[in-house]
Amino acid sequence: MSKRIVMFGELLLRLNPEGFGRLVQADRLQVYYTGGEANAGAALVHWGREVSLVSRVPDHEIGQACLNYMRRYGLDTRFIQRGGDRLGLFYLETGASQRQSKIIYDRRDSAFTGYSDEAGGWDEVLAGAGWFHFAGTAVAVAGRLAPVVARACRAARERGLVVSCDLNYRRKLWTPAQAGETMRELLPLVDAFVCGVEDAGAIFGATIDPGRPGSEQAVDVARQLAARFGLKHVVVPLRDSQSATANRFRALLFSQGQIAVSRTYEIPYIVDRVGAGDALTAGVIFGLLEGWEPQRTIEFGVAAACLKHSVPGDFNLVSREEVEALVAGDGAGRIQR
Amino acid sequence: MSKRIVMFGELLLRLNPEGFGRLVQADRLQVYYTGGEANAGAALVHWGREVSLVSRVPDHEIGQACLNYMRRYGLDTRFIQRGGDRLGLFYLETGASQRQSKIIYDRRDSAFTGYSDEAGGWDEVLAGAGWFHFAGTAVAVAGRLAPVVARACRAARERGLVVSCDLNYRRKLWTPAQAGETMRELLPLVDAFVCGVEDAGAIFGATIDPGRPGSEQAVDVARQLAARFGLKHVVVPLRDSQSATANRFRALLFSQGQIAVSRTYEIPYIVDRVGAGDALTAGVIFGLLEGWEPQRTIEFGVAAACLKHSVPGDFNLVSREEVEALVAGDGAGRIQR
Amino acid sequence: MSKRIVMFGELLLRLNPEGFGRLVQADRLQVYYTGGEANAGAALVHWGREVSLVSRVPDHEIGQACLNYMRRYGLDTRFIQRGGDRLGLFYLETGASQRQSKIIYDRRDSAFTGYSDEAGGWDEVLAGAGWFHFAGTAVAVAGRLAPVVARACRAARERGLVVSCDLNYRRKLWTPAQAGETMRELLPLVDAFVCGVEDAGAIFGATIDPGRPGSEQAVDVARQLAARFGLKHVVVPLRDSQSATANRFRALLFSQGQIAVSRTYEIPYIVDRVGAGDALTAGVIFGLLEGWEPQRTIEFGVAAACLKHSVPGDFNLVSREEVEALVAGDGAGRIQR
Amino acid sequence: MSKRIVMFGELLLRLNPEGFGRLVQADRLQVYYTGGEANAGAALVHWGREVSLVSRVPDHEIGQACLNYMRRYGLDTRFIQRGGDRLGLFYLETGASQRQSKIIYDRRDSAFTGYSDEAGGWDEVLAGAGWFHFAGTAVAVAGRLAPVVARACRAARERGLVVSCDLNYRRKLWTPAQAGETMRELLPLVDAFVCGVEDAGAIFGATIDPGRPGSEQAVDVARQLAARFGLKHVVVPLRDSQSATANRFRALLFSQGQIAVSRTYEIPYIVDRVGAGDALTAGVIFGLLEGWEPQRTIEFGVAAACLKHSVPGDFNLVSREEVEALVAGDGAGRIQR
Amino acid sequence: MSKRIVMFGELLLRLNPEGFGRLVQADRLQVYYTGGEANAGAALVHWGREVSLVSRVPDHEIGQACLNYMRRYGLDTRFIQRGGDRLGLFYLETGASQRQSKIIYDRRDSAFTGYSDEAGGWDEVLAGAGWFHFAGTAVAVAGRLAPVVARACRAARERGLVVSCDLNYRRKLWTPAQAGETMRELLPLVDAFVCGVEDAGAIFGATIDPGRPGSEQAVDVARQLAARFGLKHVVVPLRDSQSATANRFRALLFSQGQIAVSRTYEIPYIVDRVGAGDALTAGVIFGLLEGWEPQRTIEFGVAAACLKHSVPGDFNLVSREEVEALVAGDGAGRIQR
Amino acid sequence: MSKRIVMFGELLLRLNPEGFGRLVQADRLQVYYTGGEANAGAALVHWGREVSLVSRVPDHEIGQACLNYMRRYGLDTRFIQRGGDRLGLFYLETGASQRQSKIIYDRRDSAFTGYSDEAGGWDEVLAGAGWFHFAGTAVAVAGRLAPVVARACRAARERGLVVSCDLNYRRKLWTPAQAGETMRELLPLVDAFVCGVEDAGAIFGATIDPGRPGSEQAVDVARQLAARFGLKHVVVPLRDSQSATANRFRALLFSQGQIAVSRTYEIPYIVDRVGAGDALTAGVIFGLLEGWEPQRTIEFGVAAACLKHSVPGDFNLVSREEVEALVAGDGAGRIQR
Repeated sequence: MSKRIVMFGELLLRLNPEGFGRLVQADRLQVYYTGGEANAGAALVHWGREVSLVSRVPDHEIGQACLNYMRRYGLDTRFIQRGGDRLGLFYLETGASQRQSKIIYDRRDSAFTGYSDEAGGWDEVLAGAGWFHFAGTAVAVAGRLAPVVARACRAARERGLVVSCDLNYRRKLWTPAQAGETMRELLPLVDAFVCGVEDAGAIFGATIDPGRPGSEQAVDVARQLAARFGLKHVVVPLRDSQSATANRFRALLFSQGQIAVSRTYEIPYIVDRVGAGDALTAGVIFGLLEGWEPQRTIEFGVAAACLKHSVPGDFNLVSREEVEALVAGDGAGRIQR
Repeated sequence: MSKRIVMFGELLLRLNPEGFGRLVQADRLQVYYTGGEANAGAALVHWGREVSLVSRVPDHEIGQACLNYMRRYGLDTRFIQRGGDRLGLFYLETGASQRQSKIIYDRRDSAFTGYSDEAGGWDEVLAGAGWFHFAGTAVAVAGRLAPVVARACRAARERGLVVSCDLNYRRKLWTPAQAGETMRELLPLVDAFVCGVEDAGAIFGATIDPGRPGSEQAVDVARQLAARFGLKHVVVPLRDSQSATANRFRALLFSQGQIAVSRTYEIPYIVDRVGAGDALTAGVIFGLLEGWEPQRTIEFGVAAACLKHSVPGDFNLVSREEVEALVAGDGAGRIQR
Repeated sequence: MSKRIVMFGELLLRLNPEGFGRLVQADRLQVYYTGGEANAGAALVHWGREVSLVSRVPDHEIGQACLNYMRRYGLDTRFIQRGGDRLGLFYLETGASQRQSKIIYDRRDSAFTGYSDEAGGWDEVLAGAGWFHFAGTAVAVAGRLAPVVARACRAARERGLVVSCDLNYRRKLWTPAQAGETMRELLPLVDAFVCGVEDAGAIFGATIDPGRPGSEQAVDVARQLAARFGLKHVVVPLRDSQSATANRFRALLFSQGQIAVSRTYEIPYIVDRVGAGDALTAGVIFGLLEGWEPQRTIEFGVAAACLKHSVPGDFNLVSREEVEALVAGDGAGRIQR
Repeated sequence: MSKRIVMFGELLLRLNPEGFGRLVQADRLQVYYTGGEANAGAALVHWGREVSLVSRVPDHEIGQACLNYMRRYGLDTRFIQRGGDRLGLFYLETGASQRQSKIIYDRRDSAFTGYSDEAGGWDEVLAGAGWFHFAGTAVAVAGRLAPVVARACRAARERGLVVSCDLNYRRKLWTPAQAGETMRELLPLVDAFVCGVEDAGAIFGATIDPGRPGSEQAVDVARQLAARFGLKHVVVPLRDSQSATANRFRALLFSQGQIAVSRTYEIPYIVDRVGAGDALTAGVIFGLLEGWEPQRTIEFGVAAACLKHSVPGDFNLVSREEVEALVAGDGAGRIQR
Repeated sequence: MSKRIVMFGELLLRLNPEGFGRLVQADRLQVYYTGGEANAGAALVHWGREVSLVSRVPDHEIGQACLNYMRRYGLDTRFIQRGGDRLGLFYLETGASQRQSKIIYDRRDSAFTGYSDEAGGWDEVLAGAGWFHFAGTAVAVAGRLAPVVARACRAARERGLVVSCDLNYRRKLWTPAQAGETMRELLPLVDAFVCGVEDAGAIFGATIDPGRPGSEQAVDVARQLAARFGLKHVVVPLRDSQSATANRFRALLFSQGQIAVSRTYEIPYIVDRVGAGDALTAGVIFGLLEGWEPQRTIEFGVAAACLKHSVPGDFNLVSREEVEALVAGDGAGRIQR
Repeated sequence: MSKRIVMFGELLLRLNPEGFGRLVQADRLQVYYTGGEANAGAALVHWGREVSLVSRVPDHEIGQACLNYMRRYGLDTRFIQRGGDRLGLFYLETGASQRQSKIIYDRRDSAFTGYSDEAGGWDEVLAGAGWFHFAGTAVAVAGRLAPVVARACRAARERGLVVSCDLNYRRKLWTPAQAGETMRELLPLVDAFVCGVEDAGAIFGATIDPGRPGSEQAVDVARQLAARFGLKHVVVPLRDSQSATANRFRALLFSQGQIAVSRTYEIPYIVDRVGAGDALTAGVIFGLLEGWEPQRTIEFGVAAACLKHSVPGDFNLVSREEVEALVAGDGAGRIQR
């Protein structure tokens, strides 16, 4: 029940101007450390789970600062290798109203791309664990990591772990064709998959009827992906961006044949939407580990993602109680005192 | 007409992360000094009134900084005793969208709880004053202060001052039962009382019909409280929280049998809602002192409270002209230049 | 086609508290340098144009910092004279919800008011240029600058430049009567004019039917001004302020007899609206220089102005691609990554 | 003994970059309010004295913020007139090592220059006071204030107040000749005068033997000034600047024929030296009011000035106990805990 | 050799103004979490040791932030109990030149004072550990903790752990008499003790000849304490404060009869001296655990303490390599690049 | 005389914690843009020279921000190519007292390493210029740039430009052997060379007698390098680091057979020493261009370098007047007002 969760992925430095300043205006940048898997992991730690990160950061102060950041929010860093010259990084500019947020990646040849499972293999890392998770970015950043991930998935499966993957497609990292080729090999090793409607179409050739409502498109996509790759669970996030300030958010969970669509949250003021998808992923992993019904699971995940929009940085520093209070309907923003 | 207003209550240090950061993220905290009565007092000073605070802060730099803050915004600090070891404080986290604001109190055994009226009594403090005000928190923080407040109310009444009380119920300080017991003894000494619908039910057992609209519930509550405790004026704030970002606000004033309900303000973006209730209280005190009609009085109070939501910190640093311009309808947010 | 644009006007220091703090709370102020013409010029530079500023700043560090700021964002500062004692400045307080923004000017006897065209005249400044622009504030700050501007306009016309003027009326600088008297002499030298409906009525006595919709009032005003002063192009901005946080914005362009009204943007969260009018002006100048149709021109200008609301400071640090993407409909605020 | 002190002089806004940044680098400026007399006054308030400021600030938010700053640190602001358009200001850049600090004044036509004693005269202001103080800058900024100060000095003398003046010569405000002419008329009305050796030579033609040690030069100057203007007390500060980071500081007090030279403080690290001279002045006023011996007086003043170098801003926020502990020898910088 | 180190003591919130600002000036405060034992522990972690903290913090966000801070810098927080209402805190003001640093404690009735060893006892905590450390403050804050510490010491001794204690005397927490009474009972259970010369005299009545040089006084004190309480190791820090900016620092180690006095460091510019004593303690524990000679041990400790003065906050975030480079003589402050 | 100076080298992003914080503590980083050649160029611009940078930065916002920074301080950016993915960057930690400053480079595969002179060659860049400068780092970062620099030097020589090179050896970029090999080919094309004593020994095998005083070693080194490579001018900086806070600085200039050694500056408090060497280089270039005597030239250069230590960031934002005032002896750190 409370078995350890193992997550494999890159850790990054995020640098952003304060508030809504543009990068060309900034004379100081805020520092956050992040990574899709770490973001999901941090959320799970906040809800009481034990999460180990498997990654690689440089053996200098910036690598150490990254590692410290993970420790600070309770992530297990024992399996983070030290080496390489540079921590991958990105610059983020937060949009408002009609101006979009913007990310500039500088993550090539990062320490993570040199991760090796040759020495230790996956035995020690996976020992006693119950879940293995990775995101598509973990293989997008370096082709040589695809077999590493494949070995991890197989080792996980052999030990009875559930394997999950968040596609997390970034067109600045690879093309749909590249993503499709790699992911088609990995997905048969995966139990739970998170994938948006558009990406399912562009990368996996899912058939989408643009005339149908979003939630029905999501059902179609989930069924197609599940059928094609033998997936047990498919999560499809549904975001409706009216502007960089206000969004609507909900998601669908296909789970062993059952369909559950969450309620829709209107988010009137977005503090920081980066990491919201990871929060959703974390919420679904949490619900599945708890053995919840699909509806309860997806409601928890979407409420977690909704709250993420109000927290600066990529980590969803929100407690289980806060998520459940929102699920139970208390989103009215009173002061707790 | 322009007689001094005397306010008795605790002064506190408020510490909050910048912007929408959570407390676990903060590596610096903003410093404000506050207190329900001081908040109301600062607003009255901004509208031209003379206000004396009666309180107690430590005789060290933090106590001095608190006192300086009160002086900065024009409050008379002559009657603030110095002594005790610590200034009560609280940590505030500002919510956004579906995430609520949160307060952590650390105010036990504060300097204020050692306030004594033995030496000076209330003669000098009340000499020449026209109004005495306190909030429920002033007695909630220490049982020994209830008789102090009772003596103050009686002394005020004897000198012909109007006595007002804002219930300001905080469940982290006392239970409804405790509040009820204490307040039932004090309210017969009070002329004007501020109390929300829910608190009136929970603490004073007011009969509320949940099926009726909020403003009608407020009328019922005001009438019941006025009748039971012989109150001349009852103010009932009506807040509708759609989220931590956007609220609707209005209020009802029952005044010597007359009922006045203010217009409703839609507040689309809340900068800081702490102190809005105190701004309302201040506005009603101001209107009553000016001898205004109930409607004008409650409109002024609610407009003041509405503007408070746009000012960082607990003090309503808003001029009489600004409040009256909003009452007169100019809330369209043009630039004044 | 890509001829240099020359802009004449005052450069100012802008000081504002961070976020939504009021001036009486500020213990630090953010520094921006600005000026209506410089704001428009900076936008044009961002879209690929060459823009020269003609102005005067003191020969000390604050003057230098101002000049550096202009250089930083690509403006040509060759023609900025050095001299005088002080840089004009203003204090800005950013409003939120029902609280208005506020500006306190301190620009009297600034370095700019001592600008002289005696030595060099306008030959060198205008050589090879294609457009000359100034705002009403450039003559409002000092009566002695009206003949300077008149000489510049005449010299520009003689060389075949287009001359534009943004009325930019500020009642803290001059009365409608003063503005009318001065502008009536300058406008016959102007080709393109930016003027709001209200100002057209108050200053030029334009006939406005308050019962008609805003866009029709704008048409009336544009026709009257064009007829009276022989203007080729008239731009009429139409802002609808629901609050200091949310506005609606659109504009009308009357161009050689044609009328084009832009789409309307709902701006849900205003970061900084100062300079939005200058962004509109810049957009129209850009479109006219590109030889676009009136509709394309005004859509570009209004989209630029809309995006300005999301950028801190007075400069519209937004690329041509970003403006055109908004015109093309992509205002949904996705993250670019 | 504890009679009120009255101080007449300009109040200013000080803007400086954080730390050791240069003005051309600053994108934010720290805000302090100041004035030579206010600086001296704030020190005296910290030592238990009551001090009233007589000045004039604009009736807008910046004027109010200035006034609030004075109140915050305990100064009586009742006699500060409101009016005029602008608060005088200066930009300050803090030097380090071999780089000097630098001040750029922008104080012409400030609100203060419009101060008028026509309406109220000096009766109410001086009633019950024991000391009147002004600095040379108060008359340097506007010629029309010299007769105002002269009237104040005469009124003060008639009521038996001690009158003091700190020359505070600033060559950016007036020439030595101008200063000499004006001060020669005022000094016969003064009892206590603060003046440096160089200024005494340049402005009053004092005979200084450059070959003699600084303290002996100071004695000569003090005797000459006392004899010429009938001064009871003359204070001569002696600063030795090794660099912008480290200074030596001491001073001489000539008091009714007696000479007292303070010990010398080596200040290894200067946080902010602006206002140190005002702290010395305050210390001497304090000692004279206490009736102390010249030696005790000058030691207190110099210790106060020494401590000022460690406090950011112009106010010497240092208690009497702290000054006396330094006089008593405890400057070793232990932590008080 | 690499056995775990266990440390028992209070964890606190430290709040200080930025730079050299005074508390009465601060409108924001920097947040650090600290505690004498945690400070020593963090240093040891930086040198490769495993350190477990035993303490108690509240079960709210501030408690969590404290715990996160400890995790961030690598401390094991498994044995930190959650409970109580408040985290003890102190306000710190950093001195400069002749102005002393100042601390205001607000730590009464903190969560730590409710620490209980009733449930778990010390078995699990000490299992596999090699060293147990506490400071005098751990018993000074609450009398009820003295028997808890005594039980821990006995349990540690029984398991063969070395026991160390840093007196860390704070006169704001207890009197010399109280300290003496308590410590006399605990010291027989201690192997290694850190105690200054003055405290040894005031609390334990050690005979000190004020005429002898500091290092000889330290020898006398060390011998007396060792003899009286059967201590194996005594560390005596010797600080010479020329000012709050510049200090000299060295220390003496008496170890099983041997005397070693470190070299003296001149520290020209102190960034933050809080925690320097804890860094010395950590360094000596480290040397003793490594089995180094006394001279090498004390040189390491003093070099570590010297470097601490350059690091903001209470933790000595300095690597073993950096300390050893300083011991080896490279303190010339070149840039490493 | 006032011919343009051309500088070829990398432009970098510098990120450093505020004040003396360590990188592992930082939650925000200050942003500066820099580069050895740009640093020297900015100084020359401040003294009235025209300086063109030749470099390459990415065509995204970070590249633009870098370019804007250069423009802000007056550098000509016409010849900066746009392209490549990333701007090279480094993390800087500022040391204090015994703790050294530290730099972590992350500049591999930066945009600059893709600089190409194939298209334009050097004709346009050098047209009308009088001086060409580069630093060793420009070739250290990518082997493929050595022939580019060689071509530039030859083209410069052909056009009669003076060619200068600052060795600027960084052991994290290349080994002494690599540096020696490359530089030996370039130095015959160089007229003026800046090289430290240690580097001359390690890289060029210069014979140094460790027993001789530093200035004599410098003479030896200068003569040997001049003789070996046919250099007209050799500059040898001589820094004496007592600590990271206080340094002594002087330098030697060998110029066409003449030797000039500057005075020595004691710098008591270093704000930021990065870029001091570049300031020296700039000063010598300036003196040589002015045709000054060697002694005047080196005094100017060293005074400029000395002042750089007081300016945050890498640029020496110091005027010619400030440098000359220091040369003339006014380093006493008075306030200019």
